[in-house]
Amino acid sequence: MEKFTPSLEALIKEFSRFPGVGRKSAEKMAFFVLNSDKEHVERFSSILKEVKQRIKLCKDCFCLTERELCNFCEDKRRDRNIICVVENYKDAITIENTNEYRGLYHILMGHISPLEGISADDLTISRLMERVKDEDIAEIILATNPNVEGDATSLYIKKLFTDLNIKITRIARGIPLGGDLEFADIPTLAKSIISRELI
Amino acid sequence: MEKFTPSLEALIKEFSRFPGVGRKSAEKMAFFVLNSDKEHVERFSSILKEVKQRIKLCKDCFCLTERELCNFCEDKRRDRNIICVVENYKDAITIENTNEYRGLYHILMGHISPLEGISADDLTISRLMERVKDEDIAEIILATNPNVEGDATSLYIKKLFTDLNIKITRIARGIPLGGDLEFADIPTLAKSIISRELI
Repeated sequence: MEKFTPSLEALIKEFSRFPGVGRKSAEKMAFFVLNSDKEHVERFSSILKEVKQRIKLCKDCFCLTERELCNFCEDKRRDRNIICVVENYKDAITIENTNEYRGLYHILMGHISPLEGISADDLTISRLMERVKDEDIAEIILATNPNVEGDATSLYIKKLFTDLNIKITRIARGIPLGGDLEFADIPTLAKSIISRELI
Repeated sequence: MEKFTPSLEALIKEFSRFPGVGRKSAEKMAFFVLNSDKEHVERFSSILKEVKQRIKLCKDCFCLTERELCNFCEDKRRDRNIICVVENYKDAITIENTNEYRGLYHILMGHISPLEGISADDLTISRLMERVKDEDIAEIILATNPNVEGDATSLYIKKLFTDLNIKITRIARGIPLGGDLEFADIPTLAKSIISRELI
């Protein structure tokens, strides 16, 4: 098959590595680069390197940050007695965008999954334990994903922290707001009946 | 809305500029960069700059190249008496991949479109005229797109070159191979009846 010029092919190959980008999209993106002005491409090129150089993990909660502590840990106005435990940084940002939570976060950096060879020791649970012991924490909200691995991880943490005499909660699982009972999946509907609330 | 770290947001913004990439895909791509190893990101970063630095247009046919002449113009085994005229470089590569053509190409760098403010002078038609006069060209194949602008551009070139006593052809338009008559669009089917061939 006839190929484009070597450097263009190299760029197409790089774009093809990205998740959800096939050969055709990669070609479109490479041609977009080719048709962009030089200054723009140079800026894009340096931003790519900067991201790798600047971003590190918050030493307390493992959120991404460009300083020693992340925005959440640095912000003195946040409620420092409550920690919301999530699997990854994106989940913390998602929860933040609900505007319903003003406490601290703790990023586990994954979930327990024997099938994937990920054990509790691969997560940041020991640092969470240190934080709970060193700081004045009253509540831990377990906000791991509502699936097998997320539930298992939450259960593990709950057992580990159970003697520390702090409140441990799990985010509510049930039918989504705006949903139709008719279209709810059965396990979710079952869970919403079991966890019914007084109104 | 809570944002990611500044350099990560800058990278997401850059990815969002690409055609067909929305905010969510741009986030995925930025996190992919963040999770790639440093060497890989540095290589990607330099390839981006290289593409802009190295790629230029062939001085004869306006194909992309990293030298003075493109692969097609440099290749002495190609049939140098026939030029296939296309709107852009990608179209030349597409035709090349049919394995049915071994002549030269000429990239118009667009099509005539009064609505978009593109006139014949904005295209590379004068260079095509030079080539036809200087070189020993026996046939020009007009392979512009089979739409209003492509047809108009082909017609313009045909009229301009009509006194030069060379064969001027247009790629055949009709129902696609493997297609079903039932699902063919009416103008295409009409064209395939008008342009019917002896078998």
